[in-house]
Amino acid sequence: MNNFVIRGDICYSTDKATINTIENGYAVCENGISKGVFENLPIEYSDYELFDYSDKLVLPAMSDLHTHAPQFAFSGLNMDAELIEWLSSSAFLEEAKYSDLGYAQKAYSIFADVLKNSVTTRACIFATLHKDATKVLMEQLENTGLCTFVGKVNMDRNSPDNLCEESSDKSVEDTVLWINETKDKFENTKPILTPRFIPSCTGELMKNLSEIQKEYNLPVQSHLSENKDEIKWVQELCPDSKNYGDAYDSFGLFGTDAKTVMAHCVYSSDDEVELMKQNGVFVAHCPASNINLSSGIAPVRRYLDNDLKIGLGTDVAGGHSVSLFRAIADTVQVSKLYYRLVDENAKPVTFNEAFYLATIGGGEFFGKVGSFEKDYEFDAVVIDDSVLPHPQALGVHERLQRAVYLNADFKGITAKFVKGKKVI
Amino acid sequence: MNNFVIRGDICYSTDKATINTIENGYAVCENGISKGVFENLPIEYSDYELFDYSDKLVLPAMSDLHTHAPQFAFSGLNMDAELIEWLSSSAFLEEAKYSDLGYAQKAYSIFADVLKNSVTTRACIFATLHKDATKVLMEQLENTGLCTFVGKVNMDRNSPDNLCEESSDKSVEDTVLWINETKDKFENTKPILTPRFIPSCTGELMKNLSEIQKEYNLPVQSHLSENKDEIKWVQELCPDSKNYGDAYDSFGLFGTDAKTVMAHCVYSSDDEVELMKQNGVFVAHCPASNINLSSGIAPVRRYLDNDLKIGLGTDVAGGHSVSLFRAIADTVQVSKLYYRLVDENAKPVTFNEAFYLATIGGGEFFGKVGSFEKDYEFDAVVIDDSVLPHPQALGVHERLQRAVYLNADFKGITAKFVKGKKVI
Repeated sequence: MNNFVIRGDICYSTDKATINTIENGYAVCENGISKGVFENLPIEYSDYELFDYSDKLVLPAMSDLHTHAPQFAFSGLNMDAELIEWLSSSAFLEEAKYSDLGYAQKAYSIFADVLKNSVTTRACIFATLHKDATKVLMEQLENTGLCTFVGKVNMDRNSPDNLCEESSDKSVEDTVLWINETKDKFENTKPILTPRFIPSCTGELMKNLSEIQKEYNLPVQSHLSENKDEIKWVQELCPDSKNYGDAYDSFGLFGTDAKTVMAHCVYSSDDEVELMKQNGVFVAHCPASNINLSSGIAPVRRYLDNDLKIGLGTDVAGGHSVSLFRAIADTVQVSKLYYRLVDENAKPVTFNEAFYLATIGGGEFFGKVGSFEKDYEFDAVVIDDSVLPHPQALGVHERLQRAVYLNADFKGITAKFVKGKKVI
Repeated sequence: MNNFVIRGDICYSTDKATINTIENGYAVCENGISKGVFENLPIEYSDYELFDYSDKLVLPAMSDLHTHAPQFAFSGLNMDAELIEWLSSSAFLEEAKYSDLGYAQKAYSIFADVLKNSVTTRACIFATLHKDATKVLMEQLENTGLCTFVGKVNMDRNSPDNLCEESSDKSVEDTVLWINETKDKFENTKPILTPRFIPSCTGELMKNLSEIQKEYNLPVQSHLSENKDEIKWVQELCPDSKNYGDAYDSFGLFGTDAKTVMAHCVYSSDDEVELMKQNGVFVAHCPASNINLSSGIAPVRRYLDNDLKIGLGTDVAGGHSVSLFRAIADTVQVSKLYYRLVDENAKPVTFNEAFYLATIGGGEFFGKVGSFEKDYEFDAVVIDDSVLPHPQALGVHERLQRAVYLNADFKGITAKFVKGKKVI
């Protein structure tokens, strides 16, 4: 049995626009599932173990829908480069190192440790094309207690010689081996199909991945409409597709029965957005990456108004920080520049909306995740925001804003629970 | 005598485009002045005290050209509001509290402590209109050992009743009293004339401030061309002025003999830029504030190409972070969005250029400040970047990028020297 109560200043979204805050409240976990939040502890839970985090902020599951574990090593480096130069001079060079399992062990243990000590409780993670290094990453992540989907990357064309699978057959073979070796091995770490993006995968590979997806019922992650040159390239590679998303869809790898998350969606056309909505494709909004690589700003207000499924991604190392607190503040910030510089009708995203995206928005990809309301899987992140002194009295919602904008997570992470288990 | 040597991994700009890095180098301070940086310690300094910061980054003076001490209390709060709503619902409400000296003591001691433990060694700081609270701030700052200019704010019109001086005469009287009480009182903390901005100061007040400026030879700080509505308003208030900067200039408070720094300059016209250049007015570029208040993005590439005097400002609490590391990364980031969304001919600001702005660019406002080259005033900031683990070998310049982007300053500040004195 895994039953306990957390006492603290509890914050969680009740809808996109609203964060419910309960000062000195109680969040109850029974067998890894939330029984709800209470101002006074109901008598039936009075003999549960009590974790007393009085005067600390208690937040629900925070989900990172898009990040690259092997790129963590160079986060913050070479940020003057644009996408294509950055890929060849940083991303591909670093990823090629993961053919060396010793390097993978060392690098992934650092990444796993940093992720464990961040506010993230759930994540969708790209590894590299190397199946053995990907297994190393999955073992490391399993040890953190976090819940993650991890993908061995597929790339069999338009890639550097030292980071390209030798054939689509070999890519498929490695993928099937990797899936069979990992799908039942871990409690919290599961495989996700990961074609890097259309330009790096032949049609033959994509068709085979679709068969694999159906056979193993795996989720899918990839990149979509990150920048304009990339979109043109996809149009040339797939001349029959109506748009970039349609190219994935034509291979059966764009939502519907295949639970799918697509990173970026900065320049999605109206029909691509409509297709995402129809197929239930998740958007992973990665504001820091879209700035750093000079991609632009994704129209999040439009996605919110269209009721698309959408959450946040840190996209390390296009994004330079693993912090979902940064991603929340970045989301609000870039939406203001979008409003000012691109479309004055696109009302900036509010703090409450961005918090919703980081919790319930992204959490939905992992099941009933991202809230303390009854029946949600019980994750909790405890932040000691007294690391940020201030002279005046502040309410819980104000302290939450301050903790997020001023990155209280860098110094103030006190405890973390995932599926009812204490991991920090 | 105040002679010593710092050993460490030393980084400083030699020109706008270049950062010189010396691994295991020596920076020599003699009576508060740099004698230069050496790969091997010259024999004549071998009996100087040695501070051994091996494997740590050693950076020169970092200058924050624009920040509001009383607003620190609400940094990160109410960030959904736009400028005018934010001023009335946050900035003015908070500033009015500083009529209470007890509150000022408490709040300013927190601000001073946070600033002391940041990477900042020099700063231009707005207080409030309250002369006694401003003196409290100056005392607190003097105790930190940092070098700062601090301004009692002038505002005698278009301001809320509880935050408006009762007449221009009273504003002038308080200003003169405050100057006389503080100008020779502190070693490192000096008064700076601080008309809030044209809309909040009557012409009569501005004329008098110009007389005071001449009499005491004080520097000047204010706001310029932050957003379009503000510029229109100034045009209505000063119909004879050619532009917003010209309005300050007509009162003699825009550079030339009055050393002047103007925050923002997001929408400066060509003739305003020309006037800034002619008069040697400093631009305080405040990227985070310009995003948070939906102002826009200042054209820093244009200012660099025009050889304007320019440095960085955190503009707390329009900006939410006191960190100049954040301001450096923000400067690169917003310049990329400017390039992508506003003007594809405006090449993004590089990391090296942004580092230059934070060190030599802003340092010039304080004298020969911002470098370890010979004859510069000796400030040094020591950062332990081992708080950011990575699996691969990195050069000093790469470690500097990583330290800045990933905010090593939040956990890794090890020591700080200002004018040759150790303050941390």
